[in-house]
Amino acid sequence: MHHGAEILLSLFAIFVAAQIGAEIAQRLKLPGVVGEIVAGCAIGPSALGLVNAEQIAAGTPLDVLAEIGVVLLLFAVGLETRLDELKKVGRSAFLVGVLGVIVPFALGALWAHGNGFEWTKSLFVAAAFVATSAGITARVLQELGALSRIESRVILGAAVIDDILAMLLLGVVTSLQGGEGVNIKGLLFVLAQAIGFVVVIGWVGTRVMRARAHWLERPINPLSPLTIALAICLGLAYLSTEFGLAAIIGAFLAGMIASEVPQREELEHQMQPLLALLTPFFFVVTGAKIDLSVFADPSALWMLAVVTIIAIVSKLAGGWLGALSLGRRGALIVGVGMVPRGEVGVVIASLGLAAGVFSNQTYAVIVAMSLLTSIVTPPVLSLLLRRAPAARSQG
Amino acid sequence: MHHGAEILLSLFAIFVAAQIGAEIAQRLKLPGVVGEIVAGCAIGPSALGLVNAEQIAAGTPLDVLAEIGVVLLLFAVGLETRLDELKKVGRSAFLVGVLGVIVPFALGALWAHGNGFEWTKSLFVAAAFVATSAGITARVLQELGALSRIESRVILGAAVIDDILAMLLLGVVTSLQGGEGVNIKGLLFVLAQAIGFVVVIGWVGTRVMRARAHWLERPINPLSPLTIALAICLGLAYLSTEFGLAAIIGAFLAGMIASEVPQREELEHQMQPLLALLTPFFFVVTGAKIDLSVFADPSALWMLAVVTIIAIVSKLAGGWLGALSLGRRGALIVGVGMVPRGEVGVVIASLGLAAGVFSNQTYAVIVAMSLLTSIVTPPVLSLLLRRAPAARSQG
Repeated sequence: MHHGAEILLSLFAIFVAAQIGAEIAQRLKLPGVVGEIVAGCAIGPSALGLVNAEQIAAGTPLDVLAEIGVVLLLFAVGLETRLDELKKVGRSAFLVGVLGVIVPFALGALWAHGNGFEWTKSLFVAAAFVATSAGITARVLQELGALSRIESRVILGAAVIDDILAMLLLGVVTSLQGGEGVNIKGLLFVLAQAIGFVVVIGWVGTRVMRARAHWLERPINPLSPLTIALAICLGLAYLSTEFGLAAIIGAFLAGMIASEVPQREELEHQMQPLLALLTPFFFVVTGAKIDLSVFADPSALWMLAVVTIIAIVSKLAGGWLGALSLGRRGALIVGVGMVPRGEVGVVIASLGLAAGVFSNQTYAVIVAMSLLTSIVTPPVLSLLLRRAPAARSQG
Repeated sequence: MHHGAEILLSLFAIFVAAQIGAEIAQRLKLPGVVGEIVAGCAIGPSALGLVNAEQIAAGTPLDVLAEIGVVLLLFAVGLETRLDELKKVGRSAFLVGVLGVIVPFALGALWAHGNGFEWTKSLFVAAAFVATSAGITARVLQELGALSRIESRVILGAAVIDDILAMLLLGVVTSLQGGEGVNIKGLLFVLAQAIGFVVVIGWVGTRVMRARAHWLERPINPLSPLTIALAICLGLAYLSTEFGLAAIIGAFLAGMIASEVPQREELEHQMQPLLALLTPFFFVVTGAKIDLSVFADPSALWMLAVVTIIAIVSKLAGGWLGALSLGRRGALIVGVGMVPRGEVGVVIASLGLAAGVFSNQTYAVIVAMSLLTSIVTPPVLSLLLRRAPAARSQG
């Protein structure tokens, strides 16, 4: 009876690899998440092959576990984020979000056009430079206990704005690529919908939670505050995908809403075992998706180097400019925090490949760039946060 | 970018349905698990269709989540089971455990063979009559404040022995079903392997754990006792499938091993959120797999009545015979306490369905039987315990 034996072996291998990777990384004074991504790389299809490519493709059990892991992570991050505190950094977060999209998009488009892509295709390539993946930065901030710092709140607020803009941009470049031209009315509608979702959920949700926190205690189930919070998390994660946003944005909003209730500390505490079990799947699967064979071809390696540098410098510059009101050191932390592209860049690259815009090489390079930005960020961010005098919450 | 939207909707629907089902069941003084299975039935393909049949087939993300849920559940049950306490409950518990397995197994096999199943399949069907659900019984005893009664201790000890025997039996009948036929050498080999695995892991594991519990604290990760315990759980769950046993046996053994460490209470506490998130997927997916249209056929309803009566009478008789040293009233309480099949019967039924041994009708009937035994027991047990003069703890 080998029912489910293969998947159990993968679960075991991934979980143990994550623990070993995180342990080694932490002993080297690196964030544990770096170790988990590298461990994923090591056990993935292009190295040891303990997990093969079909097992981590979109929609597979491991991919779904990874998604649940990152959804829970952003929920937990949201739990540590109060709406009132986020509002205080609203202006900086908005600037960081907007500039952090414009600068990478412009530089990405110029690079692509300079490399022989026609303009509509260049804009598609550029879209893959845009979207920050909040998961990796959030994990580093959480590991360092830095979520209450003002820079962290700017990064999280900017990540929400960044995701809305990236989603719109993807809509624009896809229409352009499809030869439809840009439908301004349609775009404004999509924009209004996304902003409406975030504002209504954030604003109404927090108010309802504050007034009705006692409802969480009504069910007989002694774990009911947790189970209701998890239901809200899953529900908003789903709903945000219906509004064209990433699932993690909904999860983050759900966490932020839940942070308004008196049971918040209990919830934070109860989330720990869930994160311990499930987030490793996200980071290891992320690492396992890196196709190491790309590095065998010198021209691809060169292209990867250039693309990665453009991706890092452009995001850093955009974030830095937007956060200058925090001072140079604070702005640098915010800029670095916005660098990881993670799974969002990978999704856009897959769309580009499917639409025939990207060659296999361009696809591989963009995926590798997304993951490289995720690997290089945590150590730098960790270093900066440990050295920086905490420009602590001014509220 | 509707990446993962469909699966998120299923996760949300399943999780919410489970909470609502459990809540209603508990308000009706029924075990929550009954409500979760019924909820799965309601949202499943044969009723509301919020979850369709392809989404819960073997190897799908929802099926894997269900498997992780039941593995964690049995790990948590193991955590509440000390090897020493198992030994202490002594002769009565052993007799109740053994007779409570033999009588239902024999009657079940006779019934199945009488209904046209060939012998190897009849033994598989009979295995589904065997296993008492320790969880349901324990929950009922706890609710009545009757855990210190000698009958309760015998029930709990016997339920654990029963679980182990049932699982061994399951391993044996599944291997037989896997094509070895009634080959005595093969049977003995499978049996020896299964017993060897359980004894070596149980005996050596508990000793290593007692001596080396401090190893759990070595990693930097502050959740390290939990992460190491989870790694052991996943590892033994996988390993037990390699020894021809169900994954849940390995998980149960992992829990029993982990119950030897001083951090046991902390582990039990940390398991609660994991069970809250993941076990509902097992029970709801289980319920969703019940094909309700089967019961449109009066012959299936008749079969259900017969199967349920055999399941109740055989378990009652086995338990009663084994516990006669407690007096007739005490023996009756023990017998009734052993009746609920709950999740273990359901696990075996799912395995039978997956292995192609059971038709949809047999599966639906056995799951419904497991449910019914869980529904009828609590009120009867409650009545008996309230009336009986407490033959209090002699230990």
